[in-house]
Amino acid sequence: MHLARLLLPALLILLLPAAPAARAADPPVSEATAECIGCHESATPGIVEDWRRSRHSHAVPAEAIKADALSRRISAKSADGLPGTVVGCAECHTAFPEKHADTFEHNGHKVHVVVTPPDCARCHPVEREQYAGNLMANAFGNLDNNALYQDLVGSVNGFQEFAGGKLSPHAPGASAGAESCYYCHGTRVEAKGMHERETSMGTMAFPTLSGWPNGGVGRVNPDGSRGACTSCHTRHEFSIEMARKPYTCAECHKGPDVPAYLVYEASKHGNIYQAMNKSWDFKAVPWKVGKDFSAPTCASCHASLLVAGEGTVIAERTHRMNDRLALRLFGLPYAHPHPVSADTSTIRNRGGLPLPTELTGEPVASALIDAKEQEQRRAAMQKVCRACHAADWVNGQYARFEDTVKDTNAMTLSATKVLLSAWEKGVAAGPAQKGSPFDEPVEKMWVEQWLFYANSTRFASAMAGADYGVFANGRWYLSKNLRDMLGMVELESRSRGAAPPLK
Amino acid sequence: MHLARLLLPALLILLLPAAPAARAADPPVSEATAECIGCHESATPGIVEDWRRSRHSHAVPAEAIKADALSRRISAKSADGLPGTVVGCAECHTAFPEKHADTFEHNGHKVHVVVTPPDCARCHPVEREQYAGNLMANAFGNLDNNALYQDLVGSVNGFQEFAGGKLSPHAPGASAGAESCYYCHGTRVEAKGMHERETSMGTMAFPTLSGWPNGGVGRVNPDGSRGACTSCHTRHEFSIEMARKPYTCAECHKGPDVPAYLVYEASKHGNIYQAMNKSWDFKAVPWKVGKDFSAPTCASCHASLLVAGEGTVIAERTHRMNDRLALRLFGLPYAHPHPVSADTSTIRNRGGLPLPTELTGEPVASALIDAKEQEQRRAAMQKVCRACHAADWVNGQYARFEDTVKDTNAMTLSATKVLLSAWEKGVAAGPAQKGSPFDEPVEKMWVEQWLFYANSTRFASAMAGADYGVFANGRWYLSKNLRDMLGMVELESRSRGAAPPLK
Amino acid sequence: MHLARLLLPALLILLLPAAPAARAADPPVSEATAECIGCHESATPGIVEDWRRSRHSHAVPAEAIKADALSRRISAKSADGLPGTVVGCAECHTAFPEKHADTFEHNGHKVHVVVTPPDCARCHPVEREQYAGNLMANAFGNLDNNALYQDLVGSVNGFQEFAGGKLSPHAPGASAGAESCYYCHGTRVEAKGMHERETSMGTMAFPTLSGWPNGGVGRVNPDGSRGACTSCHTRHEFSIEMARKPYTCAECHKGPDVPAYLVYEASKHGNIYQAMNKSWDFKAVPWKVGKDFSAPTCASCHASLLVAGEGTVIAERTHRMNDRLALRLFGLPYAHPHPVSADTSTIRNRGGLPLPTELTGEPVASALIDAKEQEQRRAAMQKVCRACHAADWVNGQYARFEDTVKDTNAMTLSATKVLLSAWEKGVAAGPAQKGSPFDEPVEKMWVEQWLFYANSTRFASAMAGADYGVFANGRWYLSKNLRDMLGMVELESRSRGAAPPLK
Repeated sequence: MHLARLLLPALLILLLPAAPAARAADPPVSEATAECIGCHESATPGIVEDWRRSRHSHAVPAEAIKADALSRRISAKSADGLPGTVVGCAECHTAFPEKHADTFEHNGHKVHVVVTPPDCARCHPVEREQYAGNLMANAFGNLDNNALYQDLVGSVNGFQEFAGGKLSPHAPGASAGAESCYYCHGTRVEAKGMHERETSMGTMAFPTLSGWPNGGVGRVNPDGSRGACTSCHTRHEFSIEMARKPYTCAECHKGPDVPAYLVYEASKHGNIYQAMNKSWDFKAVPWKVGKDFSAPTCASCHASLLVAGEGTVIAERTHRMNDRLALRLFGLPYAHPHPVSADTSTIRNRGGLPLPTELTGEPVASALIDAKEQEQRRAAMQKVCRACHAADWVNGQYARFEDTVKDTNAMTLSATKVLLSAWEKGVAAGPAQKGSPFDEPVEKMWVEQWLFYANSTRFASAMAGADYGVFANGRWYLSKNLRDMLGMVELESRSRGAAPPLK
Repeated sequence: MHLARLLLPALLILLLPAAPAARAADPPVSEATAECIGCHESATPGIVEDWRRSRHSHAVPAEAIKADALSRRISAKSADGLPGTVVGCAECHTAFPEKHADTFEHNGHKVHVVVTPPDCARCHPVEREQYAGNLMANAFGNLDNNALYQDLVGSVNGFQEFAGGKLSPHAPGASAGAESCYYCHGTRVEAKGMHERETSMGTMAFPTLSGWPNGGVGRVNPDGSRGACTSCHTRHEFSIEMARKPYTCAECHKGPDVPAYLVYEASKHGNIYQAMNKSWDFKAVPWKVGKDFSAPTCASCHASLLVAGEGTVIAERTHRMNDRLALRLFGLPYAHPHPVSADTSTIRNRGGLPLPTELTGEPVASALIDAKEQEQRRAAMQKVCRACHAADWVNGQYARFEDTVKDTNAMTLSATKVLLSAWEKGVAAGPAQKGSPFDEPVEKMWVEQWLFYANSTRFASAMAGADYGVFANGRWYLSKNLRDMLGMVELESRSRGAAPPLK
Repeated sequence: MHLARLLLPALLILLLPAAPAARAADPPVSEATAECIGCHESATPGIVEDWRRSRHSHAVPAEAIKADALSRRISAKSADGLPGTVVGCAECHTAFPEKHADTFEHNGHKVHVVVTPPDCARCHPVEREQYAGNLMANAFGNLDNNALYQDLVGSVNGFQEFAGGKLSPHAPGASAGAESCYYCHGTRVEAKGMHERETSMGTMAFPTLSGWPNGGVGRVNPDGSRGACTSCHTRHEFSIEMARKPYTCAECHKGPDVPAYLVYEASKHGNIYQAMNKSWDFKAVPWKVGKDFSAPTCASCHASLLVAGEGTVIAERTHRMNDRLALRLFGLPYAHPHPVSADTSTIRNRGGLPLPTELTGEPVASALIDAKEQEQRRAAMQKVCRACHAADWVNGQYARFEDTVKDTNAMTLSATKVLLSAWEKGVAAGPAQKGSPFDEPVEKMWVEQWLFYANSTRFASAMAGADYGVFANGRWYLSKNLRDMLGMVELESRSRGAAPPLK
């Protein structure tokens, strides 16, 4: 039996989960990155560990580009200029130093705090380009440069002082915005000089950034670029698993204005995901329908490169999130075809308002995609549906969905008419009376009609999360709120003597 | 040391997770199913993979019936007529072709689209029978054949047009219903002739189905049967794990009308489930309390066959979901003992209304289970509780719960009295005034009183999700809404001159 | 090759996940515990299995105390008096029998039903001491001994009877409280004699307990102690994994009054947790930032002992949950510095009300921690933040948060002024009119202003769950509700003739 003992070393090697001898030499880390880690391992240990778990800490772009087209994760056209080391701290935080207004001297390196899409585009140029055409990349300007939306923002975020029997509105401060709308839309981050701070390494100087911190999807960066790849590809693990799971999208798509995640959670797709995802492969590229996952997440339908088992492409990867969407469910105030340009701040309706629809519901056709483009996008999405569903199932679902878009737009129109009557009767002051359309009780009910209840009903329809769309936050409130608006207008009219008592 | 090398093959076999040589030959797939897969592998790859992961793709019913009684998953009495192949596409989609009005010729097979409970009953007759006695199997008719409920449905789903200072209701279209109430309750699916469609195999003909798609629990099928096993046993993996996890029930039990899932999530049981379930065994049959799982899911308390470690049966499997429930918490408008018959559409109270309770709260005793049956069902549930809890704990919990049922019914009665006073004072038009009881603001508040707040408070009590039942959607609103109803009646009365000003 | 066969037994031992031969003898179970298990294995199998999975069933305190300081899980100063057996049923349920008023004779043992902090303190004295200084340990008395809060509780939980056109309030019964507020705050559990009950072992006598069952954080126990360790360390697995996951805290911190969990779920931290936690180590002590987990849970920031990879302590373990919190976000009705004493029932503001702030928002400084203590607690929390975030990020986040505390307090002040005007105009009856401040519609709106909307906005700010703090339950309602309050006061005034019609 002492032979067994002789064999032990060989046996033990066999028992190791992955034989280290078979692994290639550790991929090279740049000298600059090694220096960063030298200090940050103790200064900010959490993010160093995040990075160590990341693909970036193991992948060498100049090598990674050799992978076959479907499984390649970088989209640079050639290896020229790609790092020959792993993608570490320095590869991103010291790229293009002259372009970043927040570049500063830090222990002998020209470091910038805010890594931006152009930095990522060194390896991922196609994704960056797609994303630049995404509404999300323009989310700051689309909100900030729209006077009507700014009026709404002010009515939500501004402090209201009560004195003399009246509420006087104050403009919201920067913190209020940065913590609410602009957390998701992105802030404008600008370098405003330097400041000194005590650190464990002594006094050091750092750039002073306005609008910081922020990781919003449309962040305006110190290099002038727009967007933050890290909104979805969370620092510093940049995990594709995380980006593909629905919690990432849920950070900004859970409120009643755009309750995509809540609808998903209530849907059959969400049920399957929640029950079964622990055994799915969220890292596989391309993503194999049925094999790697058995129900879609947000990413499956809206972004990922999907293939059938044998490698047939079902959907191309896109970072322009509406590539498979004909209609924009988010009512402004009506659902409408998606805008042609990702910059929507220049759209004007016939009434001169910066809205993609008239107040009567008609879309501003010139600014929106035409029927042919709508059909192409619808077809792209339906191809994804048909990976699991028969065409009749898919067509039936779409027919209902399109009915629901019409129904909910009609209910928004009814609410708009009630609001107009409120303005006419003088129970609220609208634009014609030089008032904001967002600050009085009946006006806020009108906002809820389209922003919460019509939107929620449409999302519940599109993604088949029926339970959410009835009593949780959909049709029940859509009809109740409309009736309540009328009730309030009547009551106010009578109480003001503008209408006679009924009895 | 070269002996080690000699031994390697033997060692490697030992290292394999399951020695393939020890596995039986692959179970037989029917020729018809093989043909289906031949095309559908590329036509709808997702569902073919789902099925491949399923127990159906491995189990041969004629063999599976030999398992011992507790661990058997099929309930057919004999092997006669059971498939000798695995349960594939053809075994279900071509069963009893003459009975299915949606049977059509498809590549030489008589296929039907909508697989129904009688198809499943070939192997699972006991479960089908139990489910037929379940309220859920009758959910379509119980809603569709009740004029009062239809009035409520119309007030929720119908478009309202504003003109001449008034809102005029329109009846909802089929899409609105199919996307909301009937998503869960089930639609009526009928074959309405055939239509042709281009496919990757050329032009083919398919049956045209009304009410399609749908997977609601009370679906009326083209073979006349009621229900869809796949509501909970999701196609095409039919995973018992998924049916046992709470997300399946949550698809239809999450709204404020029946917030069972939200209450569960907030409860100690839900906490344990969420934190620890990754190491539980959701596939074991029978399901061993404490060993396979350490806190109940919906299925544990309401459906599953539960045993103690040594095999003692704690609860028999049931698919009649109220077998362990004495009281129906869902107020119509008051909580009441469960109905005797799963078809509730014929119940009438003394006032002739199709409700299981009077408007004063008294149950319609003749249609509801008696005290003895209530006691038996309560005892069945308490036996489940006592697998982990001492009897005093269980009794204390039940005593509180029964108090809460009384309290919330009393709060519904108060709200009903306020509504009656509104009708009397003429500030809303009720049935006596030939109006709907569901369409005016104070009436909608009354609906919320029992449908949302009383129900939510009761569910929070029954399942000990206290935090949900206070401020989230329970007692706070139950008392606030009642006070608001009175405030509105008073305000309307005064503003209409029906009541004198107070000062 | 037959040598391979000879070697098989040795090989098989190597292949076992943990060689039993190498394991120490099974740790000793006390005779008393063995007796408990003898019956309870079949009487309550679920909890016996829970315990078998627990650390308690394997750890011998007299041995466990020898672990090094950072990884030790018990805090007794010496092994004297520590059990030399594992911690089984008897070790807790028969400890200090003379001190527990619910001790009863049970099969020859002096057993008590309600295990209390002093029982746990045998091994965990430091944690017990810390927890005694926690607001949570005083949650029963802080609610029950505060007349103002009791008025609020009554207005929420009490039945309201409608007669003669009026609603008359009734005091809530014990069940209503135990199922709502006191589920989390804890009940007063008292032994009220004995009762007999049939069991599978024949008729047995058990103590009758008032307020039972309950597992609230501030439970008053039959031994006079306060708190229940099992609120968070759930019986009978007492899993540190469960206590560290956010679902435990969510049991009581999910409603709109204190929506910490919902905010967390919407935050980047919550996103990372939800997507990635399946591969984290929730059992490691100490808890290594970045290695064991890559985003904080509630426990990480508020309770756990955290170290950097190399063992540097980032935060000391604490069971006084506000040790790292300067400000109490929970408005009463304004956010304020944390109270000095965990017993807040004796605090009085200048108006004599049992509140930590004046109605104008000024804190009752004498009862609250001073600026220096605030700074220390803020620094303790920021040190946790800085394990992953640069100081500028942390400082920026805190600056916004402190602005938001001011903003939301200001919006509460505006609402309070509107309420005062309502009382002055006689459209509601406040304390000066001998009315409750909580029972009329405009008063309930005022409660929602601070209890729901200001609190929610602050939690969303503190934990960066922006989406929750805008439309889900934050700033939108904070501004809408304030405007609605004024609208209601004006409408009521006009309708009562207290104000002239506007036209």
